[in-house]
Amino acid sequence: MPIHIERDVRLQSGRTVDEVRLSYAIYGELNAARDNLVIFPTYFTGRQSCNEPYFGQGRALDPNIHCILVPSLIGNSDSSSPSNTTGPDAGAAFPNFTIHDNVRLQRALVDKLFQVERVALVIGWSMGGCQAFEWAAQFPDFVARALPFCATAMCSTHNHVFLEGVKAALTADGDWAGGNYSAPPARGLRAFGRAYAGWAYSREFFNRRLYRPLGFETSEDLLQDWERDHLSWDANDLLCKVWTWQHADISVNGRYHGDLPTALNAIKARMIVMPATTDMYFAETQASREASLIPNAEFRPFFSHWGHCAATPSAPDPGFLPFLDDAIFDLMSE
Amino acid sequence: MPIHIERDVRLQSGRTVDEVRLSYAIYGELNAARDNLVIFPTYFTGRQSCNEPYFGQGRALDPNIHCILVPSLIGNSDSSSPSNTTGPDAGAAFPNFTIHDNVRLQRALVDKLFQVERVALVIGWSMGGCQAFEWAAQFPDFVARALPFCATAMCSTHNHVFLEGVKAALTADGDWAGGNYSAPPARGLRAFGRAYAGWAYSREFFNRRLYRPLGFETSEDLLQDWERDHLSWDANDLLCKVWTWQHADISVNGRYHGDLPTALNAIKARMIVMPATTDMYFAETQASREASLIPNAEFRPFFSHWGHCAATPSAPDPGFLPFLDDAIFDLMSE
Repeated sequence: MPIHIERDVRLQSGRTVDEVRLSYAIYGELNAARDNLVIFPTYFTGRQSCNEPYFGQGRALDPNIHCILVPSLIGNSDSSSPSNTTGPDAGAAFPNFTIHDNVRLQRALVDKLFQVERVALVIGWSMGGCQAFEWAAQFPDFVARALPFCATAMCSTHNHVFLEGVKAALTADGDWAGGNYSAPPARGLRAFGRAYAGWAYSREFFNRRLYRPLGFETSEDLLQDWERDHLSWDANDLLCKVWTWQHADISVNGRYHGDLPTALNAIKARMIVMPATTDMYFAETQASREASLIPNAEFRPFFSHWGHCAATPSAPDPGFLPFLDDAIFDLMSE
Repeated sequence: MPIHIERDVRLQSGRTVDEVRLSYAIYGELNAARDNLVIFPTYFTGRQSCNEPYFGQGRALDPNIHCILVPSLIGNSDSSSPSNTTGPDAGAAFPNFTIHDNVRLQRALVDKLFQVERVALVIGWSMGGCQAFEWAAQFPDFVARALPFCATAMCSTHNHVFLEGVKAALTADGDWAGGNYSAPPARGLRAFGRAYAGWAYSREFFNRRLYRPLGFETSEDLLQDWERDHLSWDANDLLCKVWTWQHADISVNGRYHGDLPTALNAIKARMIVMPATTDMYFAETQASREASLIPNAEFRPFFSHWGHCAATPSAPDPGFLPFLDDAIFDLMSE
């Protein structure tokens, strides 16, 4: 997969990084009018290919029609991450990147790859949606449309606290060693996945046994799958992205000075803000309040018992992808 | 504090325990009519004295009028617990006790201490409320009234999954050593408390910063208080009670054979079922369904942004204790 390299990157924290690598994938080509570029950033545990179920031939986003750029989050193990960095910034010493930093790097990539006046759409799930909000607020004249789903413009205190819990589960493993582990802290990674799973779905999902259509006989089987999945991630990479997530806020920068209503009001993109109704951390109520402050946003919640994972690309609520496609069609056809 | 001893106790699991100690406290005295006995079991991290804010002179429950018996949960460090047991049942080898086992032991205590035909009221918060449900279902003719608050008649799958997450946080600490620790697994205990706190309140509690009236400037200050609090508990004692909680179900016994509607329908007590509206695990929707199946139950939810901790006796939602007193008055005056 291609890598874009930026040198001497000054982060929001003030720290300068000699070299930042941004991994990306492109599906489709820029058209002659240069108006079909779509940016679809990755989510918390997403690699580029994970986004593929969200688009395809004949779908609302179609690589035959659109040029879909999928940049990887810093920390996702493909872009610069604690696990793939050597030298003084490696591992536990890896610097903190904000969503703002991520999007600034993505903008540099877009300017290098494509000479476009505007991006047609920025879209994403979860932390991918946080990046869509950030794109719209950081570059109001550059983003024509945005569609964040199961995401909010800032990480709420409760969302922050939930992440503290799963972090605590990981770092309780002494093998984590403050991030300076020689072998993966397996107990901690399993605990992270197990503690996370209770938040990723909803009360209704578990109590109605909706894990059964996914092939899990019991909730314990599902939890063990989450353990296995998290064992495949590097602990510091996960913690790097948790930090990014916890500090998500489109207003905490020199432009908006922490004034979220002003940041939301400055967005010029046509937007659909799409929470899932039972999402336990990117909550519908918060998404609704935020959408009401964006001049050109429609609030379109997806009714689901599946919580945040209503929109997980690997196994979404069966109704979600058609619902998403409808929204993309509506947004793109205006 | 007094201790009741039962010998050769056969548990639901089939296991027999040579000696079980049930710690208890009594506030007030049995009256001449023998009709003023109230049972108020302890909750998950409750000692007997923790229940004291729920009653007092001039209150709906008044030791000058009522005889209030507070039995301690098995595993709460006062009754038989992994931490205070010696011999082959000590520590990690401590047997599993169900809510059913707890209530059978409490009934033996009541029969020994008091020769009453009926208990006037069984009441409790959280796991204390689970015991109130169990009393009403296990001894329908013996329980005149019951008032479980922030509790349900069975532990839902989602509730079970949340507890798996906090258990995983504790047991990720290698010092836990499968329960055979020589010193407290401090990282794990802290992680347990930190991960638990995100569930104990509600989204609204955190996002509206309702921890500030409690004296915590930031959510981090609150999380650190939860860490400190859990450091004072024995890890195996906590895990013992988590097991009890996860297996709570008034119908899983020889009388009801797992048929929860039948068990609820068999309750003869006059009841008020009182969830808090934003409780994240003993959910209002479940309490409502259960109450609708109890012949003589009123469903009376407490509206609060405080989640499960709306009713925590140390620092409840300011409106809760008057609301509880009203309900007790209503129930006792009929």
